[in-house]
Amino acid sequence: MKPLSDLSLGQRVMALIEDLSRHTDEPGRLTRLYLSPAHRAAAEATKGMMQAAGLAAHIDALGSVVGRLDGKNPQAPALIIGSHIDTVVNAGRYDGNLGVVLGIVVAEALKAEGIVPSCPIEVIAFGDEENVRFPTTLSTSLALSGSYDLAWLNGKDAQGITLREALQKFGGDPDGIAALKRDPSRYRGYLEVHIEQGPQLEAQNLPVGIVTAINGATRARIRVTGEAGHAGTVPMAMRRDAFAAAAEMTLAIERIGLLHPDTVATVGVATVQPGAVNVIPAQVDFALDARSPDDAQRHAMVEAIASECRAIAARRRVDFTFEPFTDSPAMPMDRGLMGEFEKSVKSLGFPARLLPSGAGHDAMAVAALCPVAMLFVRCKGGISHTPAESITVEDADVAARALLETVKRIVA
Amino acid sequence: MKPLSDLSLGQRVMALIEDLSRHTDEPGRLTRLYLSPAHRAAAEATKGMMQAAGLAAHIDALGSVVGRLDGKNPQAPALIIGSHIDTVVNAGRYDGNLGVVLGIVVAEALKAEGIVPSCPIEVIAFGDEENVRFPTTLSTSLALSGSYDLAWLNGKDAQGITLREALQKFGGDPDGIAALKRDPSRYRGYLEVHIEQGPQLEAQNLPVGIVTAINGATRARIRVTGEAGHAGTVPMAMRRDAFAAAAEMTLAIERIGLLHPDTVATVGVATVQPGAVNVIPAQVDFALDARSPDDAQRHAMVEAIASECRAIAARRRVDFTFEPFTDSPAMPMDRGLMGEFEKSVKSLGFPARLLPSGAGHDAMAVAALCPVAMLFVRCKGGISHTPAESITVEDADVAARALLETVKRIVA
Repeated sequence: MKPLSDLSLGQRVMALIEDLSRHTDEPGRLTRLYLSPAHRAAAEATKGMMQAAGLAAHIDALGSVVGRLDGKNPQAPALIIGSHIDTVVNAGRYDGNLGVVLGIVVAEALKAEGIVPSCPIEVIAFGDEENVRFPTTLSTSLALSGSYDLAWLNGKDAQGITLREALQKFGGDPDGIAALKRDPSRYRGYLEVHIEQGPQLEAQNLPVGIVTAINGATRARIRVTGEAGHAGTVPMAMRRDAFAAAAEMTLAIERIGLLHPDTVATVGVATVQPGAVNVIPAQVDFALDARSPDDAQRHAMVEAIASECRAIAARRRVDFTFEPFTDSPAMPMDRGLMGEFEKSVKSLGFPARLLPSGAGHDAMAVAALCPVAMLFVRCKGGISHTPAESITVEDADVAARALLETVKRIVA
Repeated sequence: MKPLSDLSLGQRVMALIEDLSRHTDEPGRLTRLYLSPAHRAAAEATKGMMQAAGLAAHIDALGSVVGRLDGKNPQAPALIIGSHIDTVVNAGRYDGNLGVVLGIVVAEALKAEGIVPSCPIEVIAFGDEENVRFPTTLSTSLALSGSYDLAWLNGKDAQGITLREALQKFGGDPDGIAALKRDPSRYRGYLEVHIEQGPQLEAQNLPVGIVTAINGATRARIRVTGEAGHAGTVPMAMRRDAFAAAAEMTLAIERIGLLHPDTVATVGVATVQPGAVNVIPAQVDFALDARSPDDAQRHAMVEAIASECRAIAARRRVDFTFEPFTDSPAMPMDRGLMGEFEKSVKSLGFPARLLPSGAGHDAMAVAALCPVAMLFVRCKGGISHTPAESITVEDADVAARALLETVKRIVA
């Protein structure tokens, strides 16, 4: 094993990240939406990096970049390493791109060490993870398991351009989508490295952590309807103040979210009607976002929240509706692949910290094809989706070594 | 005294209210903004009603309608009865107009009874109470004490028309404003009847109540700044959620407002940034409206609120600013005039219920000229500023009798 003071892999990761970060649709900041000119440029650059690493690479019908190393036995079930290269508006450079670059750096390292894997390795750069331009999300990774819904091609961006039109302009092929479906018997697993996008690893002073599950999420629209009134003339005791009721519900949601260390419950949006300084609020619309790595726990949490809010509404004599509009199940990671990541992290001298992923990732979609596992990398302040997104070269190096060790063991 | 089954005064009030309600700037609903064509038409109609009641009437330099009955001694200090005839957009018909009509009905009743008052009586229909069209409020009633600020003439409405231009188009006279100032020694008092705009009289099954004071009000902008974060990835315990903090502050404000029966404290507006279902709120801007009939009590209340919010902010590690932007003192009503109202209400067989006014009124402005008192009339559901504003003919009759008895005693 290379000495810990050698940061060559981390430096290589940072260099490739730097290269990729140049491809943006907006000068001065990083914005690279699915099927945009910057996405095309970044996909071409990624293809070039893959080819330089010895992979046979192409850009597929949906714009994903696929690089393949056949190894000793091209018929053996392949290992996929991947993530995405689309970004949010005014993004950081690591989200998604890090996982793609790490796949390339690992391929380079295998080549440099003269290792020919026993099975094929694919590195994939997906293109539609961030759900910014079109109504779709994870569409490019869902295509691998044949889960692409062709109706998605009719979805439009803010300019009214359909996904189909954008895909054609990009150079993709709507007619080639069905053929992207893979045969599950040909794949042994999918590994994705991603920045944590949360503060837990930083708080525990750890460079990496192993994901246990991608949390399931419930989202619900909540509406509280009270009665408007003059803020000066209606006595406190006679009010049916929708905002005071919503405030009490928000605190109940926070309290219930705090009951378990792995659950979260958030009120991120609230609008007050009529919304004047001297008018008692008549209506508040707000939304719950509740997540847990365990679906039963999440359902119990949401039920407790709804029931508590209903009691608050009754006591305050306000009307109350609670409408769940998302119920996405938790996606547990594969125990076998998690174990490989654990071994690698421990071999580098770090504790194998397990943590759930609060955010969704391409791994969720690829799980319909083969076993998946994810490694999280500490990011500064837990911040993502802003230019302030940051990781250290030391942590990039640990992530690269952990992934390399894991891949070596799997493809040995 | 006329028998209680005789509702002739109440019926007359309702008939005049009906007449006035026809003057609107918007067909199908009542909207009569200061210096609009409908205001001009309503002012002319009011002048006609005053003249029919035997008053010498004119429309003054600011558009107020002033009717005067000289009585036996034109040099004696006069009694003013008044309120306003401007309305909000999509208004009810009673707010303001009721107090003007009652002055006219009382003048009619004195005439019908052959009573010549010992001192002059003026009935005034002010024009700028609702603070809808121009930045000003109470400007026409403030002019009586010489408190009109000529800079107000430069204020603009939503169409960019200055108050000066609108006044000239109305037929008013910017150069005549200074001359509207009255000599305080020539005025003995001002009586204003107004709908309660709150639910207290209805809850206590009383037709009228005597106002103790117009509440003082503090308004403050409150900003809570926490830290944005991914709603799925930041553990509850590590959050600095601005909305959860604002919710806790809102409940503290409500709790403190409830400590005294005559105080109110309201959060009527709140905006959440960035305001997405899956993002922990970074910043919430909201506003406090706190009122009390007693200034010391109000200041203590606001101090308690600020201090409690500061403690919440400290405990939650969020930044907090609290900027009062209004501090209008309470305006106690004149004890002597209140006593006259009390006698009259009791003489009609009703308890003399005392209550503060949560809203502002022209009486606040006239108080700089002479002693003032107000009588509140029960309104359905405590509702005002909507077409649903409603009072009964029975209550209008009680209000007219109470005002008539009071005026008779004062001008005897």
